[in-house]
Formats: sequence, structure tokens, C-alpha cells
Amino acid sequence: MEWINKHHVLIVGLGLMGGSYAKALHRMGYHVSAITRNPATIGYALAEGLIDEGSAYPDPELIGRADAVIFALYPKVFKEWIRDYQQYFKPGIIITDVTGVKVEVVYEIQEMLRDDVEFIASHPMAGREVSGVKNSDDRMFRDANFLVVPTEKNSEAAVEWCMTLGRILGFTRVSVLTPAEHDQMIGYVSQLTHCIAIALMTANDNPHLSDYTGDSFRDLTRIAHINDEMWSELFLMNRDNLMAEIDQFTEALGEIRSALESKDRESLREAMRLSTERRSWFDRRA
Amino acid sequence: MEWINKHHVLIVGLGLMGGSYAKALHRMGYHVSAITRNPATIGYALAEGLIDEGSAYPDPELIGRADAVIFALYPKVFKEWIRDYQQYFKPGIIITDVTGVKVEVVYEIQEMLRDDVEFIASHPMAGREVSGVKNSDDRMFRDANFLVVPTEKNSEAAVEWCMTLGRILGFTRVSVLTPAEHDQMIGYVSQLTHCIAIALMTANDNPHLSDYTGDSFRDLTRIAHINDEMWSELFLMNRDNLMAEIDQFTEALGEIRSALESKDRESLREAMRLSTERRSWFDRRA
Repeated sequence: MEWINKHHVLIVGLGLMGGSYAKALHRMGYHVSAITRNPATIGYALAEGLIDEGSAYPDPELIGRADAVIFALYPKVFKEWIRDYQQYFKPGIIITDVTGVKVEVVYEIQEMLRDDVEFIASHPMAGREVSGVKNSDDRMFRDANFLVVPTEKNSEAAVEWCMTLGRILGFTRVSVLTPAEHDQMIGYVSQLTHCIAIALMTANDNPHLSDYTGDSFRDLTRIAHINDEMWSELFLMNRDNLMAEIDQFTEALGEIRSALESKDRESLREAMRLSTERRSWFDRRA
Repeated sequence: MEWINKHHVLIVGLGLMGGSYAKALHRMGYHVSAITRNPATIGYALAEGLIDEGSAYPDPELIGRADAVIFALYPKVFKEWIRDYQQYFKPGIIITDVTGVKVEVVYEIQEMLRDDVEFIASHPMAGREVSGVKNSDDRMFRDANFLVVPTEKNSEAAVEWCMTLGRILGFTRVSVLTPAEHDQMIGYVSQLTHCIAIALMTANDNPHLSDYTGDSFRDLTRIAHINDEMWSELFLMNRDNLMAEIDQFTEALGEIRSALESKDRESLREAMRLSTERRSWFDRRA
């Protein structure tokens, strides 16, 4: 499980994330291949030098040449792909993913996977509000976090391999979490924030707001531009954590409302000072 | 009420906003003076070429030379200043402000102001998560919105004058709103978003979150770094609007939670599509 330059890395699913992985790995000298449904995407990726070879169908020979496979698919499609095509994997290879939820994905994949192939889950905490291979840009990995999410079935070597992948891709911080820890954390820092952005946009229908807004509103709603197919699947796969985070957030917002209602300026200031102090954790590490 | 280069513009309160006004106006060739409490601030502003002259106390002569005065003070301090020092204004001048709430400020100031001086309220919708004259930067006015907020007491000429000020400062869009419209809008796009950022930070106390977060969380909480003295005053001055906005937002977030609870994927997707569509209003105008 070394990262050797001549190794063949196959990326399945060449969207924004798969394309950005391809760009980074190809530039580093790896042999990068891709399988993705749309032939035009393969053509674009070849022309732009993101990949060395590609196929618009699950070509057994291409799959069989891969020393490592990275899945950048929606969760359900990922599971179906493993079920249908894992027979073509070369024995002894390692596979990983980019999926935004883990508990509902990792155990099932590991359960159905061949014994001679190891799946180590990971999650690149980077993204853009646009999608598609044409928006690929591995600069989004800079200053971003890469999470490796092993289970008790994973080997130390696979965890090491996956941490190295995060570093090769250019992520600033690489951390290791369990699937349960991952999903709870992601319910808060990613899924809750997306719910908030959606609620901000759906709560008000004044089309003239864009004439008046400041940067704060634009910042909070940038992610309101959301891929509904992908995110509704991710939300539902993590619904217990996400509902709990919504409840906890709603309670905190309710406390601010109560302080307003009772004109309790000191409580408002206290919440603001706590918020400022906690936010500084992120400044220091940014 | 023309904007003539040789005119003296006095800025009262040389913090982030006052300093940024000074920088822009001074570069455009206006004679800029400033009154601010801290003598070191005056020294800094003179050394950096932000102002032509300044005073750390309300110097009657300096005030008396001003053809226009811009108040960049907290609301209550602004009112006290007018009450105590308006006697020194030259007859016929025009004054404006940068205050973030209007109903509780504008009518009171206009009521107590001398008849030979006109107050036209305005609100530069720009800011940074840092404060102080040393962080002054009028580039933050680019792509930003400037709001002129007249009452029935204001003249057409003053509204025009103030709209020109917004353009001189470099704001991309200049709009006119009534005080009530302004405060309702600001309760939504600015104050509610700050409450959300605060609630996001106070709802969770995991200091390791910064190892895992993506950009969305950083974006939503950038403004959680908040000046508690200023914002608690602004929140309480606009509490009815803000409480109503919190309620409306909480309801929208509650609808997302209900869809999660009942595994209603189509409702989730519908909210996401609406959110994406509405967010595109802001993209087009950005």
C-alpha cells in the first residue's frame, strides 16, 4: 500500500470532486484513469490533461488495471457499483470514496466487498457551489480538512495510505474519525449549515433583497445554491444526527430571542462574547 | 447641496467605517477633518493621510468649518453628540450617519436638530469582522449596497446629495428606503444572519471542530466574531423586527426538520430547488 508514481489510480465518477482529484493526482505524476457515465466528460478530461485514459462504461480491463480506486459517486450509486462490478478489481487493491455520510455507507460496502480488497473511507471537506468536471479545481483542497474514517475492519496500513492520499491531494489537515463521530460532526458543521442557508432563502420571498444585502447575507447563503439530488440523499442518510443538530441550534437561537424579548442586554453581550471567543479557534487555524 | 471638491467634510467617530469614509473622500480630493475620542487615532489618521485635520475633542471651530458632517458613532452616542454640540454647526449644512438601525434614531435626531441643518440618514451595507481605524479600507464599498433612508421631513436635494455620497464612496448600488422598510430589511439580511452565526457558535462547544470544518461553516460563522457593545445596542433598537425574523426563520428551519422526520425527500428537494433559484438572484447582481 505504498504510493508509487507508476501506480494506476482509477477515479469512478468525474464530477467536481472526482475531476479535482484527477487534476491533482495527474499533475503529481500518477497514471490516472476514469470511469464516468457521460462520454463528453471523458473527452473533456482527456483534452484538458486531467486523466490518461477513460471510459464511459465500467470497462473490465480498465478496472482490472487499477492499483487504487477512488469513488466519487452519490452514496446509493456507489453501493450499486460495488455490488455490480467489484468482480473486476485486481486482487489486493485498496479503494476509497468521497462520500459525505459514513455510517450508512461504510459498513455496508465493507460487508459486501471481496475479502481481497480493502475499503478505507474518507471525506474531503472541500467543495464549491458549482458542480461538474469543468469546475474542477484542486486549489479548493488548500487550507481544507481531509477526514479518514476507518472501522475496526481496516488495517493500519490502509489508514496510513489514505492519510497520505489526503496529503498528496494538498489538504492542510488530515484527521482520523470513526464513522459515528464523522456523521455527528458533519451533521453540525456541514448539513446544519446547509439547512440554515436553505431556510434563510425560503423564509423570505422579497426579490429586491439583493439590492440591499451586505456581505454577511451573501456569505450565509452562498451554499443555498445546492444540488438537491445529492444533498437530499445525504440529509436523509444522516437524519437522526441532523435533526438533533437542528434542535440544538434552534434552542440556542431561541435563547437569543428570549434575551431580546426581555431586553436582557447583558445576556446578548455574553452570547456575543462567547461566540467571538469560539470563532477565534477557527481564525487561528485558518 | 452640491459636492464641491473644496468642501470640508467632517467625520465624527474614526473607527473602521469612519476611517474608510475618510480614506475614500480624502483620496477624491475633499478636505477631510475628523473628531474622535482617542488622540492616537487622530495621529494615525494624519500620518496615514486619511484626514487633513482632526481633534480629540468637539472643537467648536473645527465643527463650525464643516460643510457636511458624517456621524460614524454608536446610536446613543450619536444622539448625545447632536444634543450637546449641534450649536456649533454652520447654518445650512447637511449631516448624515452610518447607523445600522433607523426608526429609533432618525426621527429623534430630526426632531431635536436645528431647523437650519438637515439630517439625511444613510447606511453603508459594508463591514469587516475587524474594527478600528487601522483596518480602514474603502475597497469594502465595492460591490456593496448603500442605502439612503429619508423621512417626509427630508428635501429632494438632500436625498440626491446622499445618493451622490454613496457613489463617491464607491458603492455599486445606491437605493432609497423608508426607515421602517430599512429596519425590517436589516432585521432579516443583517441582524438575523448575525444571530444565526452566534447561535451556531454557542450551540456547540467542541474545540476540535476547527480540524474538521469545511468552508461552509467558516462562511456562516465569519460574522460570529462580533462587537458585542455595538450589536447588542442595534439588536435591542430593532427587537420587534428581529424577533419576527427569528420566528419566520425558525419556522422555515422547522419545515426542513419535519421533512427529515417524515423522510419526505420530495419536500426536501423542493426547498433546495427554491433556495437555489432564489440564491441565483444574488449571483446575477453580485
